[in-house]
Amino acid sequence: MTVLYKANAARGAVWARLFAERAPDLPFRVWPDLGAAEEVRYLVAWQPPDRIMKTFPNLEILFSVGAGVDQFDFPALPRSLPVVRMLEPGIAESMAEYVVLAVLGLHRDLVAFIDQQRREVWEEIQVRAPADRRVGVMGLGQLGQAALGRLKPFGFRLSGWNRSPRSIDGVACHAGDESLKAFLAEVDILVCLLPLTEATRGILDADLFAALPTGAGLVNCGRGGHLVEADLLAALDSGQIGAAILDVADQEPLPPGHPFWRHPRILLTPHIASMTRPSQAVDFVLDTIARHRRGEPLPGLVDRDAGY
Amino acid sequence: MTVLYKANAARGAVWARLFAERAPDLPFRVWPDLGAAEEVRYLVAWQPPDRIMKTFPNLEILFSVGAGVDQFDFPALPRSLPVVRMLEPGIAESMAEYVVLAVLGLHRDLVAFIDQQRREVWEEIQVRAPADRRVGVMGLGQLGQAALGRLKPFGFRLSGWNRSPRSIDGVACHAGDESLKAFLAEVDILVCLLPLTEATRGILDADLFAALPTGAGLVNCGRGGHLVEADLLAALDSGQIGAAILDVADQEPLPPGHPFWRHPRILLTPHIASMTRPSQAVDFVLDTIARHRRGEPLPGLVDRDAGY
Repeated sequence: MTVLYKANAARGAVWARLFAERAPDLPFRVWPDLGAAEEVRYLVAWQPPDRIMKTFPNLEILFSVGAGVDQFDFPALPRSLPVVRMLEPGIAESMAEYVVLAVLGLHRDLVAFIDQQRREVWEEIQVRAPADRRVGVMGLGQLGQAALGRLKPFGFRLSGWNRSPRSIDGVACHAGDESLKAFLAEVDILVCLLPLTEATRGILDADLFAALPTGAGLVNCGRGGHLVEADLLAALDSGQIGAAILDVADQEPLPPGHPFWRHPRILLTPHIASMTRPSQAVDFVLDTIARHRRGEPLPGLVDRDAGY
Repeated sequence: MTVLYKANAARGAVWARLFAERAPDLPFRVWPDLGAAEEVRYLVAWQPPDRIMKTFPNLEILFSVGAGVDQFDFPALPRSLPVVRMLEPGIAESMAEYVVLAVLGLHRDLVAFIDQQRREVWEEIQVRAPADRRVGVMGLGQLGQAALGRLKPFGFRLSGWNRSPRSIDGVACHAGDESLKAFLAEVDILVCLLPLTEATRGILDADLFAALPTGAGLVNCGRGGHLVEADLLAALDSGQIGAAILDVADQEPLPPGHPFWRHPRILLTPHIASMTRPSQAVDFVLDTIARHRRGEPLPGLVDRDAGY
């Protein structure tokens, strides 16, 4: 019974050390050193190999190393194989940190000040009270709720939008496509934390930007696939979007010469908003394996029809 | 009985409108349109005029438009003239926002990522857990306490240093010069919120940086006079300081060609960390005038020996 890790090798070495400490009897291997393929029961992967059940005929669970599973090609995975996304507190904690950093950054004109520094300009911009600033979060799952919880003490006017209805104390919650425009009309800073599915691909497009108040700020820490990059550039040019903080891109790493690199109203980070912390992730995987062996329900089990 | 405003003229116009609404019987004027000088009882100023009592023989209170009073030349002011610094909730609120923005920025390697964007580099930096990050605040008055309150939910290890002893729940508090080095030795991100006095001028110098752990981050939202600029440049060069976020400078606006503008490990903002909000500031001034007329103690009254 082997656990195989197939993702960033440097982090794999950290996982190996943690497994050796916490589950010394459970064989743990880091791809490509997989040993006997038929022994692999649990695969922790960013990208699984092609023809997964041919490669690992006795595979019992596929774990995503991250909170998202959009990198998986579901039609190529047998429906009988449980897919589990990472649920460890560090993912939500680091995402909430990033969202607060980005929202405060837009609230306090940080993108403009970075550009001013580049141009050697020292010019104040009048501060707006948080009570006059409306922050809207798309995606009210674990990450969205964690982010809203951290934003709350600052006194922003908070709202949220989700596919299915949610109720969060102190947050004006909207649900479903038919309420999207009403939600957007009241948002000065929009945060995308949606899962990437066929329903949400390209959702951050010209139509959506047009439904926001003029000059709104955008934070995308969902996936690059949520954003229509050309539409964002046009919305920045027209002033419909004031500034954007982006942690993800269609193609990562962002290719050389891409217009986002040098755009004075875009701040980029290299997909670091949320990062799985090995120590807590190993605990989650070990706990899930134990539950699975006891026949209990699995936290983080992906609903393949919903896509997350 | 006139209230005279002598600071930024655009903001003065906002004050005039608010005074007209809230205290229509109290004459309010904006410098240089001061009317009869002997009528001026209350002066709200960033910089008062020279020979203040000659100019305004019946002056009863000098208000600072900001939280600090280091811009006043105290020896030139008669000791009998009460000096009041601005205490309005927006000052602490906006400062706390800025401190969280800057601390999260250093915690999440934002200064490095801004530099990476400039160089078109997409490279992740491993996130550190907030429980492993020590944040220390120098200056535990109203602003420092507000900032610590907003930092607390993120789970950082918090400490503080102050001239006189303080006790703040969840914060390891140090007091006095003799404990400064012990405080600094346990700080990964240092925030300066001290008042500028003869005792604190130049406190952010090579000795202080050497007492921090290697690679510590610095946030200065006190005054430019706290920082020995050449020592910071040397500490950044040697790696003793990893990155700095500075809202203030020795000379403001920062002069063209100053090495801070182009430094890849310095993020600059143009003295906007805390900004007085006219609406709440006018309420504070009106309330203080009413207290003064009733002979009550004045909140924000400056202790001239302490310098704040």
